[in-house]
Amino acid sequence: MAEVRPTSAGPTLADLGEWELIRRLGAFAPPGQFNDDAALLTLAAGEPPLVLNTDVLVEGIHFSERTTGAADVGWRAAAANLSDLAAMGATTVVGLTVGLVAPADTPWAWVEGVYGGLREALAPEGGVLLGGDCSGGGQRVLAITALGRLAAGAGPVRRSDGRPGDRLVCTGPHGLSRLGLALLQAEPGGVQAAALAGLDPDLRQRAIDAHRRPRPRFDAVRALIDSRPAGLTWRVGGCDSSDGLAAAVAAIAAASDCGARLDRSRLPLDAAMAPLDGAESWCLGGGEDFELVLALPPAWADALAMRLAGVHPIGELVAASPGTLNWQDGSSWADGPAGFQHFH
Amino acid sequence: MAEVRPTSAGPTLADLGEWELIRRLGAFAPPGQFNDDAALLTLAAGEPPLVLNTDVLVEGIHFSERTTGAADVGWRAAAANLSDLAAMGATTVVGLTVGLVAPADTPWAWVEGVYGGLREALAPEGGVLLGGDCSGGGQRVLAITALGRLAAGAGPVRRSDGRPGDRLVCTGPHGLSRLGLALLQAEPGGVQAAALAGLDPDLRQRAIDAHRRPRPRFDAVRALIDSRPAGLTWRVGGCDSSDGLAAAVAAIAAASDCGARLDRSRLPLDAAMAPLDGAESWCLGGGEDFELVLALPPAWADALAMRLAGVHPIGELVAASPGTLNWQDGSSWADGPAGFQHFH
Repeated sequence: MAEVRPTSAGPTLADLGEWELIRRLGAFAPPGQFNDDAALLTLAAGEPPLVLNTDVLVEGIHFSERTTGAADVGWRAAAANLSDLAAMGATTVVGLTVGLVAPADTPWAWVEGVYGGLREALAPEGGVLLGGDCSGGGQRVLAITALGRLAAGAGPVRRSDGRPGDRLVCTGPHGLSRLGLALLQAEPGGVQAAALAGLDPDLRQRAIDAHRRPRPRFDAVRALIDSRPAGLTWRVGGCDSSDGLAAAVAAIAAASDCGARLDRSRLPLDAAMAPLDGAESWCLGGGEDFELVLALPPAWADALAMRLAGVHPIGELVAASPGTLNWQDGSSWADGPAGFQHFH
Repeated sequence: MAEVRPTSAGPTLADLGEWELIRRLGAFAPPGQFNDDAALLTLAAGEPPLVLNTDVLVEGIHFSERTTGAADVGWRAAAANLSDLAAMGATTVVGLTVGLVAPADTPWAWVEGVYGGLREALAPEGGVLLGGDCSGGGQRVLAITALGRLAAGAGPVRRSDGRPGDRLVCTGPHGLSRLGLALLQAEPGGVQAAALAGLDPDLRQRAIDAHRRPRPRFDAVRALIDSRPAGLTWRVGGCDSSDGLAAAVAAIAAASDCGARLDRSRLPLDAAMAPLDGAESWCLGGGEDFELVLALPPAWADALAMRLAGVHPIGELVAASPGTLNWQDGSSWADGPAGFQHFH
């Protein structure tokens, strides 16, 4: 691991960056297979499609003992994966497998905590631990693969299924998880701790809960299915907001070959969080809120908002250069906060 | 990674060992879910069951740049996973997902080689790369999840489905992969290189190929299905021999609540390898041959051997203490070679 490797010709992964790496890896799969966060599998006509998703979580990058207890690591790992299933329109969770890498000196109590958290996150969705593998290694890694299924008669949610004129909505407030992380990371006596000291105790708790125990929004998928207006065929653009709200909107717009306009006066902020310095930036770029971001015909968006509390209209898709973001009032979108990039 | 962790009360993973760890993790899954190498999923009546399997491969443990080029790492990773699908009786490969962890200084050429090898191993089976995730990290790790399906009308192969009186067969020679590894690891001018210097060139090539490019035995599953004698209901005990032949037999015997007798005079050795020192030990414990080891009613075993070249009868299951191994002539099985254990 600390081994020095011979210098090789050609770029390293750091040279490529995460998105270029994913683009290159996509060339090893059938065309379009890497367009969404999860794979959609139609095995036989008449059977509802399966949804399959893999996430890796690496200690020191995706979790840390300082901010996240073992049970929360397990919960978040499961929830992040299940959120990708929900983001594809799945309503049934079959379960998940876990590939665990851990150094030999890892306490069993930590592993037990992680698997307990995984089970706790799975149980409300009806999923189970299906299997897995474990190995020694230099660093703790969890590789989770989740399997789910679309509802019979419902279609998938795909990034590329938005159209100009669609309303953009999200299923809850954004930025809370990032605030929760800041609270957990703040050194006692440090600058950030001082800045956050006067925070409303309820907001503090909501933010920490949002970070530690995010909930995959299968309830929102069910509401989406149930609220489809008569006469509208199934067509839903969308993904989850794990990489940040702005990144989700940009991804839907780019995959759907259009632009997006966001309404700056109606950002989906927790009301108690809105007055905080940096709230807008964390709302747009904080990430890990695991809400659904959807592009819907306006009538469907209205019907969904009537059925499901907390649905925020945030803007619309427009005919524009693919993936461009602008404010709805025409003011320019200065370099917006981007999603979290690995391989830095 | 090099971080010193606080001493915790309770055992570490090294204290538990791999099998005890897996036993404890199994308690987080439904009863019996961890009995086989892959999960069997019946999603709906009338649909052939799915088979899902996850393996993790860690650099320095499961592969090394010294013995394994990038394309071979990818091939072996895919083949090991697909072998677990075949070992459950799957005949259809849907595809696989890859969770990749790699340090930022990893050359893209290595990643490209790995994915090329994966694709090469998948293509003959009709499977594709379904998706995945990637992250930075301190050490290269591949977490592969493969999805397959049983043939319509065929049953699964399970470790626990053996019965006393069943014939034990395997689908090919054992020990070649271990010999191949020894050849690849031998330092030029070293003791092992000298011992292996006079090796038949054809055997040398077969052994290196067996190590670098193992083939999952879906052809053997098809032959198994096609050779079932009329009147026999589906009941097949089995697993693959990735952890070694003796470990596979012991696992089938233990899960089937019986013992096993192996015929020492008919060990499944490559004829050219049989005279080598240590051939018996590598045959029984070398591992990574990725053949199928099956427990079948004798008539079915005979029919399979007629249909598929290379099927070796190796012994039988007997009423005895679960998991015990003995030689067929009654001589005692001194501490037989065990499978490869991690977390040492």
